[in-house]
Amino acid sequence: MFHILSAEQIDHNEFGQLFETAAEFEKTDKRIDSRKEVMQRRFGRIMLSMYYEPSTRTRFSFEIAAKKLGIEVIGTENAAKFSSAAKGETIEDTIRVLNHYGVDAISLRTKEDGQAVRAASVSRVPIINGGDGKGEHPSQAILDLYTIEKEIGRLNNLNIVIGGDLANGRTARSLAQLVSKYPKNHINFVSTPELQIGQDIKAKLVQDGTSFSETSEMYDALRNADVVYWTRLQLERMSEDEKLSIGQENFVLDATALEVLPREAIILHPLPRQAEIPVSTDSDPRAKYFSQAGNGLYIRMAILDTIMSQLS
Amino acid sequence: MFHILSAEQIDHNEFGQLFETAAEFEKTDKRIDSRKEVMQRRFGRIMLSMYYEPSTRTRFSFEIAAKKLGIEVIGTENAAKFSSAAKGETIEDTIRVLNHYGVDAISLRTKEDGQAVRAASVSRVPIINGGDGKGEHPSQAILDLYTIEKEIGRLNNLNIVIGGDLANGRTARSLAQLVSKYPKNHINFVSTPELQIGQDIKAKLVQDGTSFSETSEMYDALRNADVVYWTRLQLERMSEDEKLSIGQENFVLDATALEVLPREAIILHPLPRQAEIPVSTDSDPRAKYFSQAGNGLYIRMAILDTIMSQLS
Amino acid sequence: MFHILSAEQIDHNEFGQLFETAAEFEKTDKRIDSRKEVMQRRFGRIMLSMYYEPSTRTRFSFEIAAKKLGIEVIGTENAAKFSSAAKGETIEDTIRVLNHYGVDAISLRTKEDGQAVRAASVSRVPIINGGDGKGEHPSQAILDLYTIEKEIGRLNNLNIVIGGDLANGRTARSLAQLVSKYPKNHINFVSTPELQIGQDIKAKLVQDGTSFSETSEMYDALRNADVVYWTRLQLERMSEDEKLSIGQENFVLDATALEVLPREAIILHPLPRQAEIPVSTDSDPRAKYFSQAGNGLYIRMAILDTIMSQLS
Repeated sequence: MFHILSAEQIDHNEFGQLFETAAEFEKTDKRIDSRKEVMQRRFGRIMLSMYYEPSTRTRFSFEIAAKKLGIEVIGTENAAKFSSAAKGETIEDTIRVLNHYGVDAISLRTKEDGQAVRAASVSRVPIINGGDGKGEHPSQAILDLYTIEKEIGRLNNLNIVIGGDLANGRTARSLAQLVSKYPKNHINFVSTPELQIGQDIKAKLVQDGTSFSETSEMYDALRNADVVYWTRLQLERMSEDEKLSIGQENFVLDATALEVLPREAIILHPLPRQAEIPVSTDSDPRAKYFSQAGNGLYIRMAILDTIMSQLS
Repeated sequence: MFHILSAEQIDHNEFGQLFETAAEFEKTDKRIDSRKEVMQRRFGRIMLSMYYEPSTRTRFSFEIAAKKLGIEVIGTENAAKFSSAAKGETIEDTIRVLNHYGVDAISLRTKEDGQAVRAASVSRVPIINGGDGKGEHPSQAILDLYTIEKEIGRLNNLNIVIGGDLANGRTARSLAQLVSKYPKNHINFVSTPELQIGQDIKAKLVQDGTSFSETSEMYDALRNADVVYWTRLQLERMSEDEKLSIGQENFVLDATALEVLPREAIILHPLPRQAEIPVSTDSDPRAKYFSQAGNGLYIRMAILDTIMSQLS
Repeated sequence: MFHILSAEQIDHNEFGQLFETAAEFEKTDKRIDSRKEVMQRRFGRIMLSMYYEPSTRTRFSFEIAAKKLGIEVIGTENAAKFSSAAKGETIEDTIRVLNHYGVDAISLRTKEDGQAVRAASVSRVPIINGGDGKGEHPSQAILDLYTIEKEIGRLNNLNIVIGGDLANGRTARSLAQLVSKYPKNHINFVSTPELQIGQDIKAKLVQDGTSFSETSEMYDALRNADVVYWTRLQLERMSEDEKLSIGQENFVLDATALEVLPREAIILHPLPRQAEIPVSTDSDPRAKYFSQAGNGLYIRMAILDTIMSQLS
């Protein structure tokens, strides 16, 4: 855990420590006295925020996390328009320069896959991948896992329903891989045949010995769920014909769907949501997607604090 | 005073307290020693700045005000391009998520009327309306009122000349409504017939028992003024023919106009100014529009400090 | 040294003091303990960052420099889109307003030459020119000079090779003027005839009694160099024909060029670099362009600290 490039790099033990630290920060954040104390914890450190793609949640929550640890933040929300990128500078050269500016971490979101790895390859300063194109988005994956652990109390023996556009959805793919590292989970992938989970993920599950199934019948899947991880169908990518053929109304977590869902289940969503979860569902006690977003703050505090603890 | 959505929500007593607090902050801001002390006053707090529309004065002065109180600031000057807004997320969902990020206030500028109210309707964190389209811009209205009180020493018994594009100007409309709450003021609206103050404002003045008049003769109006509140004619919205018919040269506060203006009067302007106040007028001791802008800093410090004092 | 508008305004004595201060900050930046101490040095101060043009290095390094001195930073990376600029406000009016916001320095990058001087003409707050169009970029010029002093140990008796697009390159022009103020330097300008150094610079060198030569033979020039200051040919401005006629491959600091360069020489570049310095050159001990960028941080800390030391 020097560079944070992929959730895959983190082992069970490290997850456990991150989750403990995150829970601790959630507790200290509740009172202004302890918040003030934590705000001096990493005083003297500076995080650089380089966002080549826009982002609300990831950039904000990393920057708020930094501030809450006393880490100063400098950055850009519009790195792509920067003169050096515009003048054809490589990501490696940009990182080489930033390394000489005396910063302690670089939070980076890029447009293309693999750029976080390229950045890390030349960096003496920790690189935190805040999403590289369709590649990795480790802090999102970690906070998803943390939310399950926090809400259900375990990461094994779970019946996990993952639904939406699984062919293109980065968060759904990441979660499947992560829960597959824990024993006795079953994953039920809910989507249309066209948007089902990729062959590569299924191969990994087989290799891990994780059982799974695929269906387009949401109601059947919900009946036995411990965790429902719902994602957007990304309708903006589809034609009207495709939308009709998909039958998007069959993938909406509305009142009817809530009726068949077990009382102890939880509903997660990486957000932003569209029609796949109506606002009326928000008041259901099983709806955890907003507190899931909030968990992202504490997980990012835990990530930053762990990284900073290793610096001289 | 939890959410700050409209200047109308604030009563005389609260105005008085805000003005006192602002005056106090103006005093402590003069010396580095007392500035340092105030900069620890709200340490531990975080303000989020969400600007869907660009802004120099409002965003800067709220953010500087926050910093001067020891409040950390995270934000975006370009919220409209953000992925979640671009992906069709509602303002309500955005606010719901931001509520989970452990911030203590959200300074918000939106493009459309009423969005600040929508934001506040789902927010447990104070929303500070930094301007919602053609709707409200409470901190501007409060600082305008504060400047009159500070410069003249009273908010009643005043002859107030409000000029410019009164049909479209948000600040002119707001000021008229605010001074109308104080006794024995007379408002003289100076504009062309086409750009005169709206019927709705006049109805409110009648209801409050505030006397007013309308004219297109600037010189007549200036002769008895205590306060001149001048605004842009927003010429960029007009055709050349309209400009000619308006006779814009009749609405310029130049040396000739300054001659007829009483010695004790003050000239205010929400800025930016265009041709309606030439640079030559700046050196006149009655020109208060730049210190008016500076008052905005202290009023915003007072607003933030008051809000933060109520948080646990 | 109140406003920092041009490197030309700074005399030898002030350069010496800036360089000493920068070296001191580089030392204290190495350990977290002394970093924390320095981070309280200018606590209570606020710097405003107004960038009308995008910039990675300059804005970041000024802002990081400020933070490392305990100075708070507020600003915009996109001042040109700001409502007040968009509404036709002059740079003078913008600066007048910002002067009333209680900030202690304004770091300013503008699109057009001379705007920094116009800003300073109305400002009671120090203006730091972070580059005004094709005009001045004093902090870059100072850090270039500092890097030579730091690496070679002197600023006189040097054989300085300056190469690239000298007709358009601001940094090359500035450096030539600065080293010309020190005795017994020789400058060798390497470029194609079309892109050679301007007549105005040559006139200044003659006036200062600084010897210089012009050549398009890079290898000849490198053989006796103490300092090689290499810049981009700005190929994006040229047609394919021009590129061919220029013979750009003759201006590449590759392994062959490194062979003829004296062992004690240093290679500088303002960055970003393109093909004129291949990545393979980076590992050569004479390649100092990345640590040169890093020196920019400490020079900017020295500039800010010197300015702040004069404020009441």
